[in-house]
Amino acid sequence: MAPKIVYFPVRGRAEVMKLAIAYGGEDFELELVNYEDMKKDTDAYKFGQCPRLIDGDVDMVQSNAICRYLARKYGLYGKSDAETNAVDEILEGVESLRTKYLTLVYQDKLADEPKAAYWKTHCDPESAAARNGGAHLAYLSRLLKRNSAGGGKALVGSDVTMADLQVFDIVDLHARIFGDELKAAYPDLIAFHEHIAGLPGIKEYLASPKRVAAVNGNNLG
Amino acid sequence: MAPKIVYFPVRGRAEVMKLAIAYGGEDFELELVNYEDMKKDTDAYKFGQCPRLIDGDVDMVQSNAICRYLARKYGLYGKSDAETNAVDEILEGVESLRTKYLTLVYQDKLADEPKAAYWKTHCDPESAAARNGGAHLAYLSRLLKRNSAGGGKALVGSDVTMADLQVFDIVDLHARIFGDELKAAYPDLIAFHEHIAGLPGIKEYLASPKRVAAVNGNNLG
Repeated sequence: MAPKIVYFPVRGRAEVMKLAIAYGGEDFELELVNYEDMKKDTDAYKFGQCPRLIDGDVDMVQSNAICRYLARKYGLYGKSDAETNAVDEILEGVESLRTKYLTLVYQDKLADEPKAAYWKTHCDPESAAARNGGAHLAYLSRLLKRNSAGGGKALVGSDVTMADLQVFDIVDLHARIFGDELKAAYPDLIAFHEHIAGLPGIKEYLASPKRVAAVNGNNLG
Repeated sequence: MAPKIVYFPVRGRAEVMKLAIAYGGEDFELELVNYEDMKKDTDAYKFGQCPRLIDGDVDMVQSNAICRYLARKYGLYGKSDAETNAVDEILEGVESLRTKYLTLVYQDKLADEPKAAYWKTHCDPESAAARNGGAHLAYLSRLLKRNSAGGGKALVGSDVTMADLQVFDIVDLHARIFGDELKAAYPDLIAFHEHIAGLPGIKEYLASPKRVAAVNGNNLG
């Protein structure tokens, strides 16, 4: 049976697991979550939230825990202990940026002023050494450059890891709202994004109706 | 050489790794971070932040990535794939609560009104099914109860895991500010906390001068 994702009909926090399953060569089923179940059934929804993944005997929640499970399943967690550590570092770094992005989308409604402040704090290459709570695109760009084994196509080592899928998604989300500005500032991240988008499994998934159009739950982003 | 933690002279985001090293039977060295280095040296401080851990060939950042490295090193990551998944779920659940706690301490300065609102949203057993962003002590209490193999002394399986050390720390932080209220609402978490505090290595660490007095960077908490 194909892995089943229980979630809302948006990309949101389920998108990276969909990319991983597609790259892993499997199909997935999306079941829309029932909000009442999610709040009542604390055996299945241990923290009252989704996404939830059901894959054979595995039935779990917490998007970043699910991503780690899929990384182990599909061999996307690095080829050595050092690479695994590096993957984990990047997953945390992307999560820091994702949290800020979600505040911009859900709390600040992507309004012009907070959007400009967001760019200045978390994206503008000039501001990487200022206060940003560890959330800045420049950090990811630097890690991509530093990893000579990856040649601009992998964040850790020479093969695809979960770090790459997370960075693909966060670049994708930022490209949607900062288009040309992002292209000018981070041509490396844009080229990386294009490379990942063309990988077997991912290319087909992105072109399929399974790639839902809604990015966030409030029609923004 | 003992593992070296580079951080501020507070418990903060380094405390769980100190507990893990102590439980793992090693000593650690604490080096105070130089803020300018931290912002300039992006090879060492990949996201412009600390804590940073140096342990032999390992030199890494991101507290939750470091905790996973230490979990692998000391065998605190579960005894099966299913247990590893469960540990990862709980690490994410604690992180959700920690983020809210840090907002209460640093942004809301532990003032009476936000403190009462925090209790109501993230601690009061009556409110677990309401909106809380997945951050609630009741979820952790339920997971402790549900894990019959642990008998109230372990969140996952029968042995100590990184999930236990994270939950110990988050209960510790909440006990400091909600004392009797917490004791009355979650006697199970308090008993669990007491059990972990008495484990070999941890007991000695907690009684030593290495357990720094300052909890957060602003003297609150």
